[in-house]
Amino acid sequence: MSGVIAARGFRAAGVAAGLKSTGALDVALVVNDGPDHVAAGVFTSNRVQAAPVVWSRQVVSDGRLDAVVLNSGGANACTGPEGFADTHHTAEHVARGLDIAPGDVAVCSTGLIGVRLPVPRLLAGIDTALARLSCEDAAGTRAAEAIMTTDTVPKTSRRIVGAAAGAAPGAGEYTVGGMAKGAGMLAPGLATMLVVITTDARVDAPTADAALREAVRTTFDRVDSDGCMSTNDTVLLLASGAGGVVPDAAEFTEALREVCADLARQLIADAEGAAHDIAIEVRGAASEDDAVSVARAVARSNLFKAAVFGKDPNWGRVLAAVGTTSAAFDPQVLDVSINGVQVCRAAGVGEDRGLVDLSPREVHVLVELHAGDATATVWTNDLTHDYVHENSAYSS
Amino acid sequence: MSGVIAARGFRAAGVAAGLKSTGALDVALVVNDGPDHVAAGVFTSNRVQAAPVVWSRQVVSDGRLDAVVLNSGGANACTGPEGFADTHHTAEHVARGLDIAPGDVAVCSTGLIGVRLPVPRLLAGIDTALARLSCEDAAGTRAAEAIMTTDTVPKTSRRIVGAAAGAAPGAGEYTVGGMAKGAGMLAPGLATMLVVITTDARVDAPTADAALREAVRTTFDRVDSDGCMSTNDTVLLLASGAGGVVPDAAEFTEALREVCADLARQLIADAEGAAHDIAIEVRGAASEDDAVSVARAVARSNLFKAAVFGKDPNWGRVLAAVGTTSAAFDPQVLDVSINGVQVCRAAGVGEDRGLVDLSPREVHVLVELHAGDATATVWTNDLTHDYVHENSAYSS
Repeated sequence: MSGVIAARGFRAAGVAAGLKSTGALDVALVVNDGPDHVAAGVFTSNRVQAAPVVWSRQVVSDGRLDAVVLNSGGANACTGPEGFADTHHTAEHVARGLDIAPGDVAVCSTGLIGVRLPVPRLLAGIDTALARLSCEDAAGTRAAEAIMTTDTVPKTSRRIVGAAAGAAPGAGEYTVGGMAKGAGMLAPGLATMLVVITTDARVDAPTADAALREAVRTTFDRVDSDGCMSTNDTVLLLASGAGGVVPDAAEFTEALREVCADLARQLIADAEGAAHDIAIEVRGAASEDDAVSVARAVARSNLFKAAVFGKDPNWGRVLAAVGTTSAAFDPQVLDVSINGVQVCRAAGVGEDRGLVDLSPREVHVLVELHAGDATATVWTNDLTHDYVHENSAYSS
Repeated sequence: MSGVIAARGFRAAGVAAGLKSTGALDVALVVNDGPDHVAAGVFTSNRVQAAPVVWSRQVVSDGRLDAVVLNSGGANACTGPEGFADTHHTAEHVARGLDIAPGDVAVCSTGLIGVRLPVPRLLAGIDTALARLSCEDAAGTRAAEAIMTTDTVPKTSRRIVGAAAGAAPGAGEYTVGGMAKGAGMLAPGLATMLVVITTDARVDAPTADAALREAVRTTFDRVDSDGCMSTNDTVLLLASGAGGVVPDAAEFTEALREVCADLARQLIADAEGAAHDIAIEVRGAASEDDAVSVARAVARSNLFKAAVFGKDPNWGRVLAAVGTTSAAFDPQVLDVSINGVQVCRAAGVGEDRGLVDLSPREVHVLVELHAGDATATVWTNDLTHDYVHENSAYSS
């Protein structure tokens, strides 16, 4: 069992409501049956925010959610007051069906910006989903499928945090599971990344919130496939307490981080049109912020990303990107390795670039700043013909 | 007559020294015969700077240049102390040939990063160029051709600032001319933009410096074809005073701005692989800085640029880019027009996006922030298959 129903206390469903013209699954529902209904959320920092982001940020702010309804086939972004009313209406419909409060229902949407959702179809789909809610594996998989846009595979994850030695089977264990959609941060139609994580651990709202922010900070926030920030990005954590275990906060955060890292890695691996997954690791930074800023600058260099697509270890483009940042370093001492070959030493020519093999999908770029002990890794993809094709043809 | 020899007091040459494997022209020389030798320079803000940038910034800092030597076929960037010695050696060779001081010779290089220049060939090419220095039109054109990398056409410009009414022909006139290379800011091999501007006006060094900075600020600094900042960008202004006219400072700045704008526009029109030239105009900003930051964010959205390539007026991607900035605006009142059709009104759906015609090469995106009176325009290109192709195949 994987995904949102891996943890006890949750049911899910995924149905086809006709929002996608293909007839594929497009509405997902995740319900927390408790006993706890603790929740936390992290949302896009884009100032242009879709209606469901505005709604969900508000309803999760009290640390409680009973259900999440998600749809693909339309982002409900830049749709004005009417679009917000559509989101409100959607939450009310779910609440009525589950006999819960609308203010405990989060809403997530993904798809094209600037188009109203076909609300009657969406509500009919929700009715079907309500009737099919289940804690079986297939329901979790269908929910993960229903939030796909240009994703080619559903993305789920699970971690079971073990019991003390000698305990009875299942005793003292808790589970963290989750699902995600997003073809990289590439944002087809710009409604990129939706993630729902569930756990049967007993955590209070401040613990859930702190753990989620820390886990997201070093995982989803370090995936930067194409530098484009969505209007709809949402990561939700729901805790049912159904396992009865009160976890150690650090251990819980780490389990959550592992699930987020696994899902983030799946996003990169399925990024639109990508031929390479590129890890930009920065070492020797004066601070973690510096390391992230340098890694992100490299991750956003179209020139370097196009070079990787062409299997060209063009380290000059790495240095040129590093040089645009304000991180602490001496430009004269920078080292760069690509897939283990130190092609740049002390900002000059190092090993023969012909030794670098860029035929595997995974690429490791190591930038050594020689300015301290901090480190960070940002994941990105190469810039390919297929990326241009998918993103030039999506909405027309 | 156009280019660097349009103004009186200048000679130029362009020769093939064998730095390019194609045998095309690759070494240019521009000489200021005076009587004045005033100069100013603006350089890349990248912290990773090529040896010729380090050298030229130093030698122009006293406000004097007698000559500029430029080469394509190699950026001499990330080449360590040896690369700097190569630049120094190049300047000394030019100085010996002209009987001037090496410290009055600027050096510019463009091409692949991380490769040493073949200095003997370069010096032999300089000898040939010295022998061919001329103030004829063909010499200016050959100089402009010699600095091309993936440029498909040489880029020159000229403005003649008129005399008072009733003056004799030529009396009271002065000329500003120039040449540029750079296939957009796209930076093949990352040694993007080199510009040399000449004038026969009589200006002092502070006037030249102030005028050049102001002219560059609103022209070359607002060309952002692919967001990648070069290690070699250099804009030099040389004033010979050969026309004897002491210009009005504001009028001179404007003439300089017009030449820079013309050359910048030519860079965009010849950008690598581009199918559209896109002007992002921001109006109603609280400050010019805000307007530039918003326009630049849109200009750097790969998603929007790919959509334009696909002739898809995907305004949601414009709003998503605007939302990533910290400029002053209310996200609820943003308007966006594309080629005259107001596709987004008050951050919601406006006119039918089907009315937008994206078949012409020129695209005008207008973002109205409703936050003040400031405005700015940034030029960029679309993201195309040819961009990916050229930049994935360049150095291999």
